[in-house]
Amino acid sequence: MSRKSGVPVPTIKYYLREGLLPSGERTGRNQADYGDEHLRRLKLVRALIDIGGLSIAAVGEVVGVLENADVVTHQVLGVVQRSMGTDEPPPADRASQDEVTALLARRGWDGMADDPAALALAGVVTAARKLGHHRFAAQLDAYAEASAGIARQDLDYVLLHARVDDVLESMVVATVLGDAALAALRRLAQRDASARLLGGG
Amino acid sequence: MSRKSGVPVPTIKYYLREGLLPSGERTGRNQADYGDEHLRRLKLVRALIDIGGLSIAAVGEVVGVLENADVVTHQVLGVVQRSMGTDEPPPADRASQDEVTALLARRGWDGMADDPAALALAGVVTAARKLGHHRFAAQLDAYAEASAGIARQDLDYVLLHARVDDVLESMVVATVLGDAALAALRRLAQRDASARLLGGG
Repeated sequence: MSRKSGVPVPTIKYYLREGLLPSGERTGRNQADYGDEHLRRLKLVRALIDIGGLSIAAVGEVVGVLENADVVTHQVLGVVQRSMGTDEPPPADRASQDEVTALLARRGWDGMADDPAALALAGVVTAARKLGHHRFAAQLDAYAEASAGIARQDLDYVLLHARVDDVLESMVVATVLGDAALAALRRLAQRDASARLLGGG
Repeated sequence: MSRKSGVPVPTIKYYLREGLLPSGERTGRNQADYGDEHLRRLKLVRALIDIGGLSIAAVGEVVGVLENADVVTHQVLGVVQRSMGTDEPPPADRASQDEVTALLARRGWDGMADDPAALALAGVVTAARKLGHHRFAAQLDAYAEASAGIARQDLDYVLLHARVDDVLESMVVATVLGDAALAALRRLAQRDASARLLGGG
């Protein structure tokens, strides 16, 4: 498995001890057999760590959900998202919370006012207000519209996969790799728009 | 200034020593006057650190560009982006680099093939391929389209501001706070789409 994946043996043993990989089939006192499913899981663990920047504990949570057949599919997303957002949300004032609540209502995103992401968003609006950027909140409808387009795309991707295992894994991939891809594309799009409009100085 | 901003005096002194704030007007041996511009800069420094997660060194770079009148406006964006992206891009294989180059060409984003963001994007595509998610790259056109919409919105926001100082600062705000807002909205949009489509399990 180390040879096929390029991951050193001590690292694989560490992942096994931490429960990130299922045990292999024991074939001797110090030997075990690992199949394609193990290799696939190992690659996923590495992507979560290397691209998503998840901690070992956060990877353990994601893997735990993937292995729990009783978890409703869309709950996987919640666990993946929470594992990726490690920071405390910045403090939000009342006016900013109201702006976010109104935004959620305009989009029909019901029951999300207490979601950690909604609180984080209100904290960002508060930070903008403190900087005197009160109009920043007016941007958020356009941001939300773009986000909805991306989420539809993510879900279409997830639904390409027929087996439940594949659906869950593709959801993790779409979230973690999608975040990294979107950050990079946002940079490129900004630079393009900026060069076109402001290039002259 | 400490009273108006809520930032402790020793922290303000530290920012002054690190060159993140311009010196005040000296009014005595141990006294200096700080005006509205100082207060505004202080709030910006805090937002870069608290919301953007920038290091002191990265804030110093951003502030240096804001103070350098010779820098062409759209170069400010490059400095802000580089200060925020501290990680090494993940390694990219040749096929992934070609996919990214083709994507850039389809969008007319010329001369960006060597941009750190383009290299990072190729690394993400490579990671998806290693996981057997070859179709992930096909998502990127939709991601790029959404990113272009957001970038136009950002630029419109920046161009609301008439003074050059304000344009530069609003660019920093749109990039740093915009990133945090977009991450939160993407979470909410995913949860909404997922609950609608997969809620039944």
